[in-house]
Amino acid sequence: MPFINPDFLLETVAARRLYHDYAEFEPILDYHCHLPPQDLAENRRFANLFEIWLEGDHYKWRAMRANGIAERFCTGDATPREKFQAFARTVPQTLRNPLYHWTHLELARYFGITELLDESTAENIWNRANEQLAGDLTAWGIVRKFDVRAVCTTDDPADGLEHHEAIAKSGLKTKMYPTFRPDKALIVHQPEAWKAWTGKLAMTAGQEISSFATFLAAIAKRHAAFAAIGGRLSDHGLNHCFGAPCAESVARAIFDRTWAGQAATAEEHRQFASYLMFYFGQLDAQAGFTKQIHLGALRAANSRALAEIGPDTGFDSIGDWPQMEMLRDYLDALDREGSLPRMVIYNLNPADNYALATMVGNFQDGKIAGKMQFGSGWWFLDQKEAMEWQMNALSNCGLLSRFVGMLTDSRSFMSYPRHEYFRRTLCNLLGREIENGLVPEDYEMVGSMVKRICFHNAEQFFGLNL
Amino acid sequence: MPFINPDFLLETVAARRLYHDYAEFEPILDYHCHLPPQDLAENRRFANLFEIWLEGDHYKWRAMRANGIAERFCTGDATPREKFQAFARTVPQTLRNPLYHWTHLELARYFGITELLDESTAENIWNRANEQLAGDLTAWGIVRKFDVRAVCTTDDPADGLEHHEAIAKSGLKTKMYPTFRPDKALIVHQPEAWKAWTGKLAMTAGQEISSFATFLAAIAKRHAAFAAIGGRLSDHGLNHCFGAPCAESVARAIFDRTWAGQAATAEEHRQFASYLMFYFGQLDAQAGFTKQIHLGALRAANSRALAEIGPDTGFDSIGDWPQMEMLRDYLDALDREGSLPRMVIYNLNPADNYALATMVGNFQDGKIAGKMQFGSGWWFLDQKEAMEWQMNALSNCGLLSRFVGMLTDSRSFMSYPRHEYFRRTLCNLLGREIENGLVPEDYEMVGSMVKRICFHNAEQFFGLNL
Amino acid sequence: MPFINPDFLLETVAARRLYHDYAEFEPILDYHCHLPPQDLAENRRFANLFEIWLEGDHYKWRAMRANGIAERFCTGDATPREKFQAFARTVPQTLRNPLYHWTHLELARYFGITELLDESTAENIWNRANEQLAGDLTAWGIVRKFDVRAVCTTDDPADGLEHHEAIAKSGLKTKMYPTFRPDKALIVHQPEAWKAWTGKLAMTAGQEISSFATFLAAIAKRHAAFAAIGGRLSDHGLNHCFGAPCAESVARAIFDRTWAGQAATAEEHRQFASYLMFYFGQLDAQAGFTKQIHLGALRAANSRALAEIGPDTGFDSIGDWPQMEMLRDYLDALDREGSLPRMVIYNLNPADNYALATMVGNFQDGKIAGKMQFGSGWWFLDQKEAMEWQMNALSNCGLLSRFVGMLTDSRSFMSYPRHEYFRRTLCNLLGREIENGLVPEDYEMVGSMVKRICFHNAEQFFGLNL
Repeated sequence: MPFINPDFLLETVAARRLYHDYAEFEPILDYHCHLPPQDLAENRRFANLFEIWLEGDHYKWRAMRANGIAERFCTGDATPREKFQAFARTVPQTLRNPLYHWTHLELARYFGITELLDESTAENIWNRANEQLAGDLTAWGIVRKFDVRAVCTTDDPADGLEHHEAIAKSGLKTKMYPTFRPDKALIVHQPEAWKAWTGKLAMTAGQEISSFATFLAAIAKRHAAFAAIGGRLSDHGLNHCFGAPCAESVARAIFDRTWAGQAATAEEHRQFASYLMFYFGQLDAQAGFTKQIHLGALRAANSRALAEIGPDTGFDSIGDWPQMEMLRDYLDALDREGSLPRMVIYNLNPADNYALATMVGNFQDGKIAGKMQFGSGWWFLDQKEAMEWQMNALSNCGLLSRFVGMLTDSRSFMSYPRHEYFRRTLCNLLGREIENGLVPEDYEMVGSMVKRICFHNAEQFFGLNL
Repeated sequence: MPFINPDFLLETVAARRLYHDYAEFEPILDYHCHLPPQDLAENRRFANLFEIWLEGDHYKWRAMRANGIAERFCTGDATPREKFQAFARTVPQTLRNPLYHWTHLELARYFGITELLDESTAENIWNRANEQLAGDLTAWGIVRKFDVRAVCTTDDPADGLEHHEAIAKSGLKTKMYPTFRPDKALIVHQPEAWKAWTGKLAMTAGQEISSFATFLAAIAKRHAAFAAIGGRLSDHGLNHCFGAPCAESVARAIFDRTWAGQAATAEEHRQFASYLMFYFGQLDAQAGFTKQIHLGALRAANSRALAEIGPDTGFDSIGDWPQMEMLRDYLDALDREGSLPRMVIYNLNPADNYALATMVGNFQDGKIAGKMQFGSGWWFLDQKEAMEWQMNALSNCGLLSRFVGMLTDSRSFMSYPRHEYFRRTLCNLLGREIENGLVPEDYEMVGSMVKRICFHNAEQFFGLNL
Repeated sequence: MPFINPDFLLETVAARRLYHDYAEFEPILDYHCHLPPQDLAENRRFANLFEIWLEGDHYKWRAMRANGIAERFCTGDATPREKFQAFARTVPQTLRNPLYHWTHLELARYFGITELLDESTAENIWNRANEQLAGDLTAWGIVRKFDVRAVCTTDDPADGLEHHEAIAKSGLKTKMYPTFRPDKALIVHQPEAWKAWTGKLAMTAGQEISSFATFLAAIAKRHAAFAAIGGRLSDHGLNHCFGAPCAESVARAIFDRTWAGQAATAEEHRQFASYLMFYFGQLDAQAGFTKQIHLGALRAANSRALAEIGPDTGFDSIGDWPQMEMLRDYLDALDREGSLPRMVIYNLNPADNYALATMVGNFQDGKIAGKMQFGSGWWFLDQKEAMEWQMNALSNCGLLSRFVGMLTDSRSFMSYPRHEYFRRTLCNLLGREIENGLVPEDYEMVGSMVKRICFHNAEQFFGLNL
């Protein structure tokens, strides 16, 4: 039996039944990812396995570096084939790392390859995969193959939406919607980068920015444009939430100083970011958007690598700041004024799972089922152990039944099996508990919950046009 | 086989043997709960299932809100029957939440009902339960049915003890003792509420309060009154411990300013609270009381709900403050002067389990076995996953064999099956380890430990008159 | 079947195969311990089971105190036999504590005793063990019996290396190397103790210390002496890392003030410690040493016990400080200037496992496989539950295959079975996953990884002369 077989991860009869009868054939709603909109709009064809699989994957680079593979074979000037070989050499060393499972699941699902990847099988796998990439496995072929109903990309408000417009006109059954991610609006401690971004925002918004008021107006205009094309989500990447109340006059003064080229202090940055986060919350609440917040990353920890290779290249890790009071302040302030949108809050430090799972419970309002979501295992937590932790915390401190489930969060078209991986893990958890008598052996009840977590909860929750 | 069956939660033969032969028939010593003393004193009869089960249960309200149930059906003006129906609708959505287990265990143990509760079974269950509530299932009937040897209620020093006196005279076999919980003595940052409480304390103590010295004397007088009627425990609810040394003159000055109506600053609050916590520790040590401390709650996170619905209504969550140094300072200062009483310290953030389990080990004095207790899974942690974590942390960092075990911590007479739930979880843990060879297959040794954790350790430890 | 049997801890057939075919007979490289060098140099003979087993073991004292055993029988003036009896009385109460497993594994492996230790078996066990201690089981006999290839002791730079020199000349097959642990160089907040240490350092280095420059030079001279005799590791015990940049002039001024007898402030201590930690890092990088850092202990929590009994007597616990930013600052600064040595970082708070496992990943440089190691479960985490957590965190966030594995970290010659305990736990983890289909059933691949984690990774990584 191959390593990736029909019952992979499914340890009990009950788990197999739940997966095969309820989860396996549900469509995918990929409500958060980092795919380049252009790739889907242009139905990108991938020259080889490197391009679709290794080109931008910092998970793989981290593993390769830990395996003593030189940077040349990660982000450097080695050839695609050489880089693939270096990765293949690393794969057997990743036993018990999620890469080991992902790698083989992806090879099996995209190319029907069930051989284990290592130095000796690399050549054969490279050739077989490339053949198929030359055939149907374009961007469109892939989203069709995995029955992806919608892809929500992550977009800067200063970016145009032309690719989303193109998709909308293309007739592709899979929808693509933009997600409003205004992280750069907050970087007043880096006045040059902030100023450049502001300029770009003004261009895209088609409106002059010359004051705090016009700055806010341009942001709102872009938010409306995202909404007009069908976007229903926003997103923020924050090490911890900004929730200190900040008066408009204070934020305006900081805007003016930054506009004049003066870098904001750490305290001013906090104030300005808090003001904007409230503003973004109001925009989302008014437009019926769901706000996503990604908390807890300690980014760009290696300054040498940042200078040499750039950001998002595998030098980020998990922070350990106390953050519940700040998050409480933020959610409470929005709720108090009736501007709390639906939210999905993602946590990166598993030590905070229970604190976060209970925090979101403080703001369930009895109007929208599962209004405040504790998001699925994110980044380093996007693997079996940590997905189980997230689901256990959610189950014990809230309602698993209302969970909007999995997303890929990926830069690569090769990541759709993450949904399968999640579903198998979910069914395995529930199946074991059915067999141990912790969950009633009522497949209609449990199976229907599984189906909802796989697709239907998200379908209803986000209000996307599918 | 019904969902709640004789071997519920018991996954191995060894677990079943431990539970049925050793744990099942041990009596209950409920050394910490929030039952209203009056209810027991007056042998309260409950009009219906709502009154005994839903009336004050914030666990259920949180789940209902997360399920999109309007506040009207939680704490609002819907009828008891309507509220019960709304809860019944929510129950199937709570799969994997502890409520799912508790609900069905309680229905089975109080009313012999083994049907699963949902919208369709609600009417029948409502009627069957209400019939029995009209019969023997009064407050007294319940504590007899569950063989509860003592109930330790949680009492404000400013409250009278007339209900405890009434029980003592009533001939009821179940004892009821008050627990000294002086949280309101600390609230010098809210001078009006503090002043009102001080006035009430003076009345109950039958003594004028006009100075810091008379304030302390009144507290001591009440402590003595609690002791005189058989109380042997105190309790404190703190987000984190107060352990900074504070001179008497400093505390007195804060007292005087608050007395004059001036709100204490955050720093003054800390100092005053530290002074009083040392004072409370001395009182407990002198009187042979066991001090309970509940650490880590982030309370009343939702200010809108606090204003509309009030405190303790399901808007509290888990804090993430570093707190070991403060706790160390407190315990160390008491120990240094020979005033460290027995303690049970409860932790709300599972990330702190190991830190706390090792911290209490620093103050085991070799005189009283298990003098410093790492308390049982509390509040959000009062469920299978987290009770196992607490027992594992205690086992690995201390002595499980000396554990005083479970308590209900409940406002409801329907919570006694929590002890059964805990015992099944304990026996399941040990049984699995017997079968895996991690614990010797010596039922006399392991079973005797089980019995002690169920009842006898607590019986000996607290020194209550049973 | 006795409790300690050939398949102890091995729950599956696959686990047994991995352990017995791959792990069991690997030699031991004990790269970190606290054995007194003199004991090995002089081939110490132990008078009785107390001397070799209880004399300095704070794990046992903590358990005994928690069991209500008076200090007299822990560190006090009771006779060795009385102390052993008190420990024997405690053992059955330690069920589920690692002591229960360690105790019986050690009795079995050193003395072939498979009886369970309790009050009734104590006399017999005492006699049988003492007989064997009078025979072959001297220090040398023990390291031969367990096939220990090298012992890395923990040494103060101010200590001489005469015992290491003696061993090198002795012809003992087991090597003994010193580890450079300069913790006392940092204690400028305790000027008297620091001054005394500095004086001792000058003596050992054979060089005058009269200035910051000569202080640094003396340290470097000792580092070179450790290297010359074969040492390849350094070590630091820190509650959290010191990583704030500190100019040489600032550190020098602090040196001068402390030299003049003035205690450094907390801030000055941080600055001075940061400066020295960078200096130590540079020394290690230049000499090819591996730096070990032990993070997260909250030491000497009980000031009464510290005064009465002294440090390292069982009154230490786990801290809960946020520490990732400081650690990042330290690693990043060394890396930026090309002075980052190999490292093994040990963590004491399991809540920080993932944060630390990902932090070390930020500094893998693609030159040395596994250059940055997340160290094995340490102190309170040196048991099955926490070793599994450490291996799971390492596996999920890095490469288990590159792990340098276990160490004893012990003051006692009775601790070598810790390696066996670790290996059984490792094989049990992997075996279960083979049986569940999470790891391929390829014994050559998995077994070879097991062998490397048991011995060969460490052998290659540390570059010790074996």
